[in-house]
Parts: sequence; structure tokens; C-alpha cells
Amino acid sequence: MDSEIKLLKLHMAEVVDLQRSAALLSWDQQTYMPSGGSKDRAQQLATLEGLAHRLFISNKVGDLIGELESNVNDIDYDSDDASFIRYVSKKFKREKRMPNSLVSDLANTTSLAQEAWVLARQNNDYALFQPHLQKVLDLTRQKSECFTPWDNVYDPLLDIYEPDMKTSELQNIFSDIKDELIDLVSAIQGSNVKVDNSILYGDFEENMQREFGLIIARSLGYDFTRGRLDETVHPFCTHFSLDDVRITTRFDRKCLSSALFGIMHEVGHALYEQGISPQLSRTGLDTGVSLGVHESQSRLWENLIGRSRSFWKYYFPVLQKMFLGIFDNVSAEEFYFSINQSKPSLIRVEADEVTYNLHIIIRFELELDMLNGDLQLNDLPEAWADKYKTYLGLSPTNYVNGVLQDIHWSIGAIGYFPTYTIGNLMSVQLLQAAKKEIGDLDNQISQSDFADLLAWLRHNIHCHGSKYSPRELLHRITDNSVDPKPYMEYLHNKYSEIYRI
Amino acid sequence: MDSEIKLLKLHMAEVVDLQRSAALLSWDQQTYMPSGGSKDRAQQLATLEGLAHRLFISNKVGDLIGELESNVNDIDYDSDDASFIRYVSKKFKREKRMPNSLVSDLANTTSLAQEAWVLARQNNDYALFQPHLQKVLDLTRQKSECFTPWDNVYDPLLDIYEPDMKTSELQNIFSDIKDELIDLVSAIQGSNVKVDNSILYGDFEENMQREFGLIIARSLGYDFTRGRLDETVHPFCTHFSLDDVRITTRFDRKCLSSALFGIMHEVGHALYEQGISPQLSRTGLDTGVSLGVHESQSRLWENLIGRSRSFWKYYFPVLQKMFLGIFDNVSAEEFYFSINQSKPSLIRVEADEVTYNLHIIIRFELELDMLNGDLQLNDLPEAWADKYKTYLGLSPTNYVNGVLQDIHWSIGAIGYFPTYTIGNLMSVQLLQAAKKEIGDLDNQISQSDFADLLAWLRHNIHCHGSKYSPRELLHRITDNSVDPKPYMEYLHNKYSEIYRI
Repeated sequence: MDSEIKLLKLHMAEVVDLQRSAALLSWDQQTYMPSGGSKDRAQQLATLEGLAHRLFISNKVGDLIGELESNVNDIDYDSDDASFIRYVSKKFKREKRMPNSLVSDLANTTSLAQEAWVLARQNNDYALFQPHLQKVLDLTRQKSECFTPWDNVYDPLLDIYEPDMKTSELQNIFSDIKDELIDLVSAIQGSNVKVDNSILYGDFEENMQREFGLIIARSLGYDFTRGRLDETVHPFCTHFSLDDVRITTRFDRKCLSSALFGIMHEVGHALYEQGISPQLSRTGLDTGVSLGVHESQSRLWENLIGRSRSFWKYYFPVLQKMFLGIFDNVSAEEFYFSINQSKPSLIRVEADEVTYNLHIIIRFELELDMLNGDLQLNDLPEAWADKYKTYLGLSPTNYVNGVLQDIHWSIGAIGYFPTYTIGNLMSVQLLQAAKKEIGDLDNQISQSDFADLLAWLRHNIHCHGSKYSPRELLHRITDNSVDPKPYMEYLHNKYSEIYRI
Repeated sequence: MDSEIKLLKLHMAEVVDLQRSAALLSWDQQTYMPSGGSKDRAQQLATLEGLAHRLFISNKVGDLIGELESNVNDIDYDSDDASFIRYVSKKFKREKRMPNSLVSDLANTTSLAQEAWVLARQNNDYALFQPHLQKVLDLTRQKSECFTPWDNVYDPLLDIYEPDMKTSELQNIFSDIKDELIDLVSAIQGSNVKVDNSILYGDFEENMQREFGLIIARSLGYDFTRGRLDETVHPFCTHFSLDDVRITTRFDRKCLSSALFGIMHEVGHALYEQGISPQLSRTGLDTGVSLGVHESQSRLWENLIGRSRSFWKYYFPVLQKMFLGIFDNVSAEEFYFSINQSKPSLIRVEADEVTYNLHIIIRFELELDMLNGDLQLNDLPEAWADKYKTYLGLSPTNYVNGVLQDIHWSIGAIGYFPTYTIGNLMSVQLLQAAKKEIGDLDNQISQSDFADLLAWLRHNIHCHGSKYSPRELLHRITDNSVDPKPYMEYLHNKYSEIYRI
């Protein structure tokens, strides 16, 4: 059995090397590549990804898995090897179920759909995108059909991004929180307290923003000998190995908060990847286990830490010193209020903690209806507008701030949106568990001391990489599944204090 | 036959994509990669290169070549397809001759040898490197043995870097120029004219150096929408497609000429790659045909243009304006003299046009003696010193400026050095041919007008990529083989005027 594991690891290492190389090509494309390079870069990415897929679904892997699976119960469930076998086996079976023709149809269709989406946004013209979305939807349904039997057409799609999460579980969670969120939004809207965040807008020199971002990133524990910060249009975190985990951001000279919280968000993702056990390197287990768990890490640092009073107790004076003069007449408390303003908006990525999950619920409900055939694409903009009106009290003024705002559908990432909310919910569950074990975390945070928290996250979450499913991981830590109560409590406590409701 | 060509092209496109992806990984390693990334990057590079090799020497390629070769005479020799078949076939046969065990032995040995070389340099200790060099030499001899029959053990090594060039031809060329070069060096040394280049040393702000370099690069014709300039310790040019050809440089605040001529040199390489016909994209023919021809392009721009009077007629006033104050009391003529100072030195990469080729001849002679067993590695430093004394009149003061100065042997690149001189010689042959067809090139250059020259190079050299062997290419243009006479005439004319000899 040892020799089979060894062989499978050697094989997987090649697959992983190809995938990580593709990630570098993509990072380069979004940071430094001259414009001329686009056409051939797309082909190179297709070649690397295609080869990785071919290598992965080879008969050799199938044979090795067959032999290993029959013996996996002989080894400790928690061992790296047992996890490795479970992981490769599940992934192999999933990839094997998708016929090559469907994989390449999806690649071609989404490639064209993404171009059409860009064009449709430029022209604020949904009609340019609609036929492409239709094709994506049809193929996505076919994709789902490959994985029958299931209870819900959405199940296998969700499983790609959040392994082992079922649609019914998601529906329960969302129905638990939807009305409560809508009520909270309207209570905040009805409050006499009006939070003014105009101090976040002005003229903030980019170099200073970068410097401040770097100071915070370092303090949170991001290791720059194993990472770096570059600029992109759409910020992201990516990794080419456990020792090369990079983040990107976008500086807006007129708005302080955009890059600031963007960096903390990406650092959250990066700390996860940098904290994975070196033993898992190049096995495929050497990455965060799901988008939801990943988002729990980014949101934890961005929101639970980064938008907390304790954090700014330490960092507001630093900020004042760096942006000399600008915050002279502002108190730490006022700054805390301003970064926690809650206000319904049309754009998901700009939404605050309270309203954000309603944006997600809207997308999830629309995805389900589209997949089930309950919603025709002709009617999508209207359905979008209706839901925004009902949940958030406002309607898109055009397609760009409406149905064309997200890239996800154009790239075929249907099933992806819910993981943002799963991450938000988990972030509070996890931080609560951490607080139980760490003496006075708030006090540590107010001294810019994140060592205990990072150590706890490393020990309980990061080091495991993809060894445990998200459900297993969460159960090991909290003895519970994804549970919206702690998050809702957190929101109620925080915002009832801010808005005196 | 059409369908076989199509299949082979599809296959080669994947191989090329893998090679170009590896090139990007390597570029990143030398520009932006955080230090932590080294270990895994090496493995990723090995995976990509190994896969490219495996794909290339697959039976599928062998079968296709077999069928295509028997019909290649039916199609036009000058067609892209005929060149493609010749190119793939030659390369396939060469790679097939090398047993996998030798390929991996060489990879491992040179990887260790390179580390040992770095360490040996740090400690100025040849003994640390000698046993590694011995292994590299032994394996290099084995490598050569794979290609018997040959006339000279050096033939198959040279052929890797300069296809179709024979050692005997090289020996004739070198024996033609060696004494003449030695005489010229000593005549210059004996001249009453002493060229002072101290104006090139001082304090030159890096941003200004970059700005000036970019101005020149653009003027020469380097297309920044299909390229970019970054900083590295060891400058190079690399490409990931015909539309993404990047150069790097190193700025020395204390020395103006280092980055200045370095950039022109790399731009010369880059113009070659940027000028290759798009029809050849992803075939393997989409790169410069040999190191010699490549060097002819870099040297042409760096030396024949970049160190010419005409060039500085235009650019010296620009330089004066950019580095305000520094060159107020210098004339264009003085500047021209200073950048053409000729003086024997110990370091090849800093050598001027006259002495440079003697550094190469020394290395070539030593390589031959080592391979033939006429020189034992114990005696290498002494042999090195003897030759430097005889040819250039000076001896190394340590190992670092002696036998440990070049990386080439440590990476197994034996057979590489002569291509630097081949490039120098060809550069003058080619420029002479261009001048015959372009009215008044010197006048154009003095007006910063390089359009005709670049168009000529594109039409006669660049566009062909690797379609023709270096010998064929040169014959098509000059009706001659590599011929040292034009170069020697150029040197005599230029330096007898400067040094009044």
C-alpha cells in the first residue's frame, strides 16, 4: 500500500505543479502581462489546465485509487495518507463523470459568455448577454445531470465550491436569516442615528495607503518572504506553493476604505494558505478546503477583526500619524462608526455586513429558479429588481448595477455565491470558538497582538489544508454544522449598539 | 499529409505552451518571486520541462515525423510546413538519442554543480567546485557519445547552441582572428592615446536611467504593448509568445553605461523575437534560430548602432538634458570615445569589442582541452591564468575573477561560449548587407530613424524564426558563411581612428 500511495503522490505532484503553474500564468495576466500577451496566454492556460485534467483522470490514477480505497480503512482516518486517498478518490470520481465534450463545451461557452458580459456591461445591454447566459445555464444543467441521483439540481453545483453542503441545508439556513436580516436592515434605516462615513472619502496618497496596508498585513502575520502585494483591477489571493502566496489590491485615491479592507480580506485568505502543513505540499490537499471556509478566514480578518473597536484602538492613532492632518479632528470612535455604516446599496461588493447576505440570497434564489425553469431569462431583470425592492428597498437603475454586475454567471460559476454567506456565518462560529480558548482576545487585538489568534487558526484550521471536509472541520472545532445564530447575534449586538435600535 | 501536419502542429503547440509556461516561471523567479518560493518553483520547472520532453519524444511524434519525412520533398523547401517538418524531425532525433537516465543525471548534477559554484564563488574556493565540474564534464562527454559518429567530441555540443556549425569551422575562424586580435590589443595598449571613460562613472539616478533606457528602447522599435522591462540581478530577454517578449536589466547608480548598453543589448534580442512571423506561432519555429544569430542581433544594436558616432549625434543632447548638469562640459565626441574605451580586463561580461572575443577563445580552447582529456581539472586555474597572460596580458587575482567567473560550466552549457563570438562576427556581416540596401543608414541613425534598418532585419532575419538553419539564413543574405573579415575590418577601422594606430 505504501508504494501505491507513493506512486499516487508522485503523480498528483505533477498535476498540482501544472495547476500552480497555471495559477502563476493567471496572476501574471492580471498584474504585469503586456496587453499583447492575452491571446496566447489563454491558449497556454487551456493547455496547462487540459494537461492537468488529462493526467488526473488517467487510468493510472483510477487503478491506484481502486487498490488504495479497499485498504484505506486500515489506516488512521486522521492521517495525511487517509485524507489524501479520500480527497483524490472523490475528486477523481467527480471529474470522471463529466464527459470531455461537456468540459470543452463549457470552456468554450463561458469564454464567449465572459466576453459578451464585458461587452454587455460596456453597453448596459442585457440582451447582448442573455443568449450566452442561456447557453451557460443549459450546459450547467447538463453538468448537474452527470451527477444524478441528487435531491436538487443545485446539489452537485454547490458541491464543487462547498463540498458536502446540500441545497436543502442552505435553504434552511437562508430561510432562518432572511426575514431577520430584512428586519434588521429596515430597523437601521428607521433609526434616528445616521452614521456619516464622509471621512473615508477625500485624497489619500496611494503610497501611504500601500504603506499602511503593508504595516497591517505584516502585523496580522502575513509573511512577505513567502508572499507579496501587487496591484490589479480585481483584487484576489493566489498561491503557487505554500511558500509563495500572493495578494493583490486596487488603490482608490479618493477612498481610504477600499484598499484597506481589501488588503485585510486578502490577507485573511493568504494566512490560510501560508498556514497549511508543509507535509501536504504538492498533494492537492495543500490548499484551503472550500470557498466557504476560505471566506470565513478573509471575513474574520476583514470584518470581525478589521472593523472592530479593539483593532482601531491601536491602529487609529497609527492612521492619524500616517495621513497627517486628515484625521486630526476625528476620534477613534467616529472612525469606528464610519467604517461600520450600514446602508442598502445595489452593488454586492460594496455592501456592509448587514446587507451583504441579502445580496447573496437574491442571487441564490434566482439561480435556483433559473435552473429549475421557474424563471425565464427574459424575466430575469424584472425578478432581480423585484427581489432588490423587497429585500433591500431599492431597485437597479440600469443593467450594470443590476443583473450584469457580477462576473460569476458568465464564467459558469453557478453555485458559488452561497459560499460568501457560508463564510460569513462560519467566521463568527470560529471566532467564538477561538475566544473560548484565548484569554482576552479583544485586549490582545487592541495591542495589535494577533499571535494567539493566528496560532489558534493555524492549529485548528489552516494546517489541515483540505484534509477534512468543511463539515468535518467545523464539527471538530465547534461540534456543530454551519449555524447562522452566532452571526445573527453578532450583527444584532454590533449594530443595535451603533444604531441604538 | 495535411492532416498529419495538422496533428503534429497541435501536438507541438502543447509542447511549446509548456516550454513558454516554464519560461514565465523562470522570469517570475528572477523578478518578483518571494524568496520562500524557490524550492517549489524548482520542482514546478522540472515538471513542466519534463512533461514537455515526454510529450515531444512520444511515439505519436515519431510516427507523424516518419510519415511526413517521406513526403517532405513534395512541398516547397521554403514553405513554413517544410521547415516545420525539418525542424521537428531534427530535434526529435536529437532528443531521442539521449537516454532518459542521462538527461536526469545531467539535470541533477548541474543543479548541484550550480549550487556548488555559487558557494565556491562566495568563498573564492575552486576546490569546492572542481569535483562538480568533473562530474559535469564526464556526463557531457557521455552526452556527446550519444551522437557518434562525429569528427570532434565538441561537435554535438556546439550543435545544440549553433545548429550545423562544426568545431573545425570554428577552429579555422578562431585561428584566423586570434593573433590579429592579440596584436590589435597590444597596439591599442601601446598607443599614445589614452581614452578616459571616467564621465561614465558618478551618480546617475535610477529613475532617470530607466527613463532614458525606455526612450531608446522605444525608438529602436521595441513594442511595449508586447513587452516590458523589469529588474533582475542577471539581465536577460525571454518570451512567452511572439506578443509577450520581455527584457530585464540591472541599474547601477554609479555607472551609466551598464544598464544603458545592457538595455540596448536585450532590446536587440527582443526585436528578433517580436519580429517573427505570426504564422509560426506555437510551432517551435517561433523563436530565434540559434544563440549566434540571436547574439548577432543584440550586438548589432548594442555595439554597431549603440556605440556608433551617428547614434550619439542624436542621443547625446538627449542624455545631456536628462542628466542635467552632469554632461555640460562634455562633447558628443568625448562621450563617443569614452564608451569605446578598449582595455584588457579579467571579466568577460565587462569586456569591450576588441578584447571580448579573446575571452571567448580562451574558454573555447579550455573546453576542448578538458573534453579531450588534455587538461586535468587540477591544472585548470593555471591554464586559465596562462592564457589570460598570453592573450590579454594580465592574470586573475583570485578564482572569482578567474575560473569561477562564468555560470556556464556549472549548468552544463559547454559549447555555448563560441556563439558569443559567432554573433559578433555575424553582426557586422549582416549590417554590411543591410547597408547595401538602405540608402544612407548612418544618416538615418543620426536622426534616430531606425525604421529602414528594423524593416530590413525583420524581412531578412526576424520573420523567419527558426525556419532556416543559421548557415542557410546567412547564405541567403550574404552568400557567405560566418566570415571574420568584415568584423576584423570594422574593429581595425573603428579603433585605429580612436587610438590613432
